[in-house]
Amino acid sequence: MSTVKTEHADWEKAVEFHGHSCPGLATGFKVSKIALKELETIRPSDEEIIAIVENDSCGVDAVQVIAGCSIGKGNLIYRDYGKQVYTFACRESGRAVRIAVKKPGGRNERQGTEERIKQILALPAEDFCEVRHVNIDLPSRARIFPSHPCAECGEWVMEPRARVKGGKIVCIPCAENYGRGW
Amino acid sequence: MSTVKTEHADWEKAVEFHGHSCPGLATGFKVSKIALKELETIRPSDEEIIAIVENDSCGVDAVQVIAGCSIGKGNLIYRDYGKQVYTFACRESGRAVRIAVKKPGGRNERQGTEERIKQILALPAEDFCEVRHVNIDLPSRARIFPSHPCAECGEWVMEPRARVKGGKIVCIPCAENYGRGW
Repeated sequence: MSTVKTEHADWEKAVEFHGHSCPGLATGFKVSKIALKELETIRPSDEEIIAIVENDSCGVDAVQVIAGCSIGKGNLIYRDYGKQVYTFACRESGRAVRIAVKKPGGRNERQGTEERIKQILALPAEDFCEVRHVNIDLPSRARIFPSHPCAECGEWVMEPRARVKGGKIVCIPCAENYGRGW
Repeated sequence: MSTVKTEHADWEKAVEFHGHSCPGLATGFKVSKIALKELETIRPSDEEIIAIVENDSCGVDAVQVIAGCSIGKGNLIYRDYGKQVYTFACRESGRAVRIAVKKPGGRNERQGTEERIKQILALPAEDFCEVRHVNIDLPSRARIFPSHPCAECGEWVMEPRARVKGGKIVCIPCAENYGRGW
């Protein structure tokens, strides 16, 4: 399959996951493709790559699909900075790359949506973003913990989030306000 | 396509997105299927359904794929309670359903992984979880805001996350520690 065809198939996958096509998704798609190329790696099956995203806009869905960094795998770290900045790191090589989009794409552009999407996808990388290879401390891998039933509601709670009330294990919602005010 | 074939194709989609198959993914898959059935709706193209997930484990990736509630669309709300509890609401009908998994599936079971996945997917809903129709206040839809270049680093920041320093617009990392200590 040619690179163009692969790109197209991958874009379709991102659109299917996100539910629709938009300039924000195109931004995250392009960022992810640049990151994988810069890190000389491919989409991981587990947590081999981590992404630190500084926004929670549409582009993050493309990061999940294309770079394989997702909330459920624990290798997508969200920082609420409202910035179109994405840092990717590869656990094996220890290499990391920080990608800052030069001018975020949005629906508030004068262009039509389709025109804007095509423009983003076609932009040369150097016009689209600033790429810097950086050093970062890699976060630990996601862990699995045992669960316990909450003594109040009976629902199961993962041990590190369990609380204690009257000597019994409870969940956070059942522990709410316990020990705060009278 | 028969229901069994659809189920199988959807499961394959979830596995492809997550990067691998595991009991946690099967849990989120089953939860999402039950939710869509209970709400009598289908996977949305935008934010028509919202999900409130009380964990960030593997199952959340299935919620993103199957129920179409994702971090990038703004219709996935994460509460860090460590509970296998998922609430889904439909904006159009106003209906909401809360699904609490009875005993979370995990890698720490004595069964083999494949056996555990099959068991979860085959369990009758009533043995797998508790389903309650509930009333919830729906969060606002995601909004798009203008961005400004940060006066210090030059990177763009979304207006609601912008800070002010020396009368100029800056981003959160550049504003860090400004006004805290001397």
